Amino acid sequence: MKGFRFELLTQDSGSQARRGRMTTRRGVVETPVFMPVGTQGTVKAILPEDLKAEGAQIILANTYHLFLRPGHERIQRLGGLHSFMHWTGPILTDSGGFQVFSLGKLCKISEDGVRFQSHLDGSRQVLTPEVSIAVQEALGADIIMVFDECIPYPSSREYVADSTALSQRWALRSKNARSRRDGAALFGIVQGGMYPDLRRQSAEALVEIGFDGYALGGLSVGEEAERMYEMMDIALPLLPQQCPRYVMGVGTPENLIEGIARGVDMFDCVMPTRNARNGTLFTSFGKISIKQARYADDNGPVDPACGCYVCRNYSRAYLRHLYQSNEILASMLNTRHNLHYYLDLMRQARLAIEQGRFGAFRADFHRRRHDDGSQD
Amino acid sequence: MKGFRFELLTQDSGSQARRGRMTTRRGVVETPVFMPVGTQGTVKAILPEDLKAEGAQIILANTYHLFLRPGHERIQRLGGLHSFMHWTGPILTDSGGFQVFSLGKLCKISEDGVRFQSHLDGSRQVLTPEVSIAVQEALGADIIMVFDECIPYPSSREYVADSTALSQRWALRSKNARSRRDGAALFGIVQGGMYPDLRRQSAEALVEIGFDGYALGGLSVGEEAERMYEMMDIALPLLPQQCPRYVMGVGTPENLIEGIARGVDMFDCVMPTRNARNGTLFTSFGKISIKQARYADDNGPVDPACGCYVCRNYSRAYLRHLYQSNEILASMLNTRHNLHYYLDLMRQARLAIEQGRFGAFRADFHRRRHDDGSQD
Repeated sequence: MKGFRFELLTQDSGSQARRGRMTTRRGVVETPVFMPVGTQGTVKAILPEDLKAEGAQIILANTYHLFLRPGHERIQRLGGLHSFMHWTGPILTDSGGFQVFSLGKLCKISEDGVRFQSHLDGSRQVLTPEVSIAVQEALGADIIMVFDECIPYPSSREYVADSTALSQRWALRSKNARSRRDGAALFGIVQGGMYPDLRRQSAEALVEIGFDGYALGGLSVGEEAERMYEMMDIALPLLPQQCPRYVMGVGTPENLIEGIARGVDMFDCVMPTRNARNGTLFTSFGKISIKQARYADDNGPVDPACGCYVCRNYSRAYLRHLYQSNEILASMLNTRHNLHYYLDLMRQARLAIEQGRFGAFRADFHRRRHDDGSQD
Repeated sequence: MKGFRFELLTQDSGSQARRGRMTTRRGVVETPVFMPVGTQGTVKAILPEDLKAEGAQIILANTYHLFLRPGHERIQRLGGLHSFMHWTGPILTDSGGFQVFSLGKLCKISEDGVRFQSHLDGSRQVLTPEVSIAVQEALGADIIMVFDECIPYPSSREYVADSTALSQRWALRSKNARSRRDGAALFGIVQGGMYPDLRRQSAEALVEIGFDGYALGGLSVGEEAERMYEMMDIALPLLPQQCPRYVMGVGTPENLIEGIARGVDMFDCVMPTRNARNGTLFTSFGKISIKQARYADDNGPVDPACGCYVCRNYSRAYLRHLYQSNEILASMLNTRHNLHYYLDLMRQARLAIEQGRFGAFRADFHRRRHDDGSQD
């Protein structure tokens, strides 16, 4: 069984940006990378082949959702998640922690884990570090995340300290729960809320345990972007250079570029896919809302600077018509454009780091959004 | 400007089945043909490229819907319907008559046409033969249908006689309203309800006016299949052999095979696409409802006899999961499978006619559905 490996290829001179290569048992991932989210065993509204064609290298699947429906044991019996959803590339699964708290009902947390009721049918369920790892192994994840508590924002220092300590104990139990030498990687998750010293402690404790990669959790939960960047600046330098760093659930295109500048290698977010279904499209000059009447007679592409399938073949007027008419094709085309935007942005960032011009790339990225009249 | 042409290639010896070739200004259509329905400027839940890859040769668009939203004049300004929806093949537009009566509110019919209120915003609208033709021309249709009244079923003989006579006068006005020598074809529509003598009169009157092709309207409106076949048997022999014959809004796979046996060249129906979105899938052994619990652990393809993209790559268990989870991909994959089924059935029928074995093909088609345990 092939193992997990991460190589650092290039380091930017003017920032912490890194160009890396992650080798998983299901293929290579060039970093920095954005991972589209496939919550229920599908990245919503796009075929796996089209996802791959747009440049997706690895996707994220949600343990909480698949645990409840159709069930990880069923997926295992059917041959694992990759075969089930017809995606042959690597899959990272989250631990279920975040969704238990955001979707589950009547959550009760204890040293052992979390008791909750399913948002689907109210059934009583338990997730512990051991269960979370077993579920992720049954799904066949290539990168497994430790089970953690997601800390609400804002929270008191005492709450954050206690929760972070509990998540550290769960991280160790997660590592011990790994039952297979299957080549899948295990990532720890740094918590600590918005408290610099707790972030530092958490990072150091996780490095002490030792993982294949390290994530920052509990960011993009309502705090200011500057606060999030501050937490990155504090925690990332404490993590081993030779391991991949992943900021969970982040974020906007701006967040991605700024995260890369701070040394982040991996991102995931529902933003490109969810916004697509709500008619919000990403462009080189900022976001546009395709439902607006101003686009009704606009025969131009979503973004004249974009070469994606949607921008080559469809007008803003058509996309607006589809959205207004509640057509499924609206979600399909908008999703494809937005994913192309995110994945292409990362491709450009990787190239810029390789070519030693990430600083100029970053400045240009921000300049365009100010010059060209983004709507927000 | 290239014109419209129909060639009869082969005639079945044991039935009225015909193998033909229709040449439109936007390409050749091999008949018998099934036309997927793209009501609002999209065949729901499938990309135009995938539609073409599945073998769609020509699609139908609905005049009523596009007239109301986004408006035919807007579509014309934007370059016509083909460019708007990124479909380069031929498009047939219906006349709007059927939807005015099924969707419009407070319809008032007069010699001139129909006044109604939009189902979208209640706005007052008028469709006449002249308006319908102008709308279809503005859209850029390759096959244009005359404006007609859709007769409810059941209806009294008096009502049907009056309505059929009115539709005949509208058919003549539709022909006179054609303002362009643009190479688009104009088809007449035979009405007459379920009254054999009125069907005959209607067919003869339309042939007298003279059209590029002839449709049977007012079928598949709730009558027994045998009654529908009887109307085909009565009307089709009265239509010119050298013109294409189209049965509108039909139907089930059984209806298609039986229609072909009676000499029908063209069909359209929302059944494969609408049923797909409701979880009903067509197979060589009949329909299945993918939402049923019996498929939860079924790792086999929808139809072991089917070689489509969906059956090659996804299990019944996965399709059931997607459906249960309200995922857009459920509609996408189900639509693709069902359209493949319909389009492949027509391809097989064409081949059987060419090879002089349509009788055996037809018998085999029916036998499989009885032997293999269709659920309905």
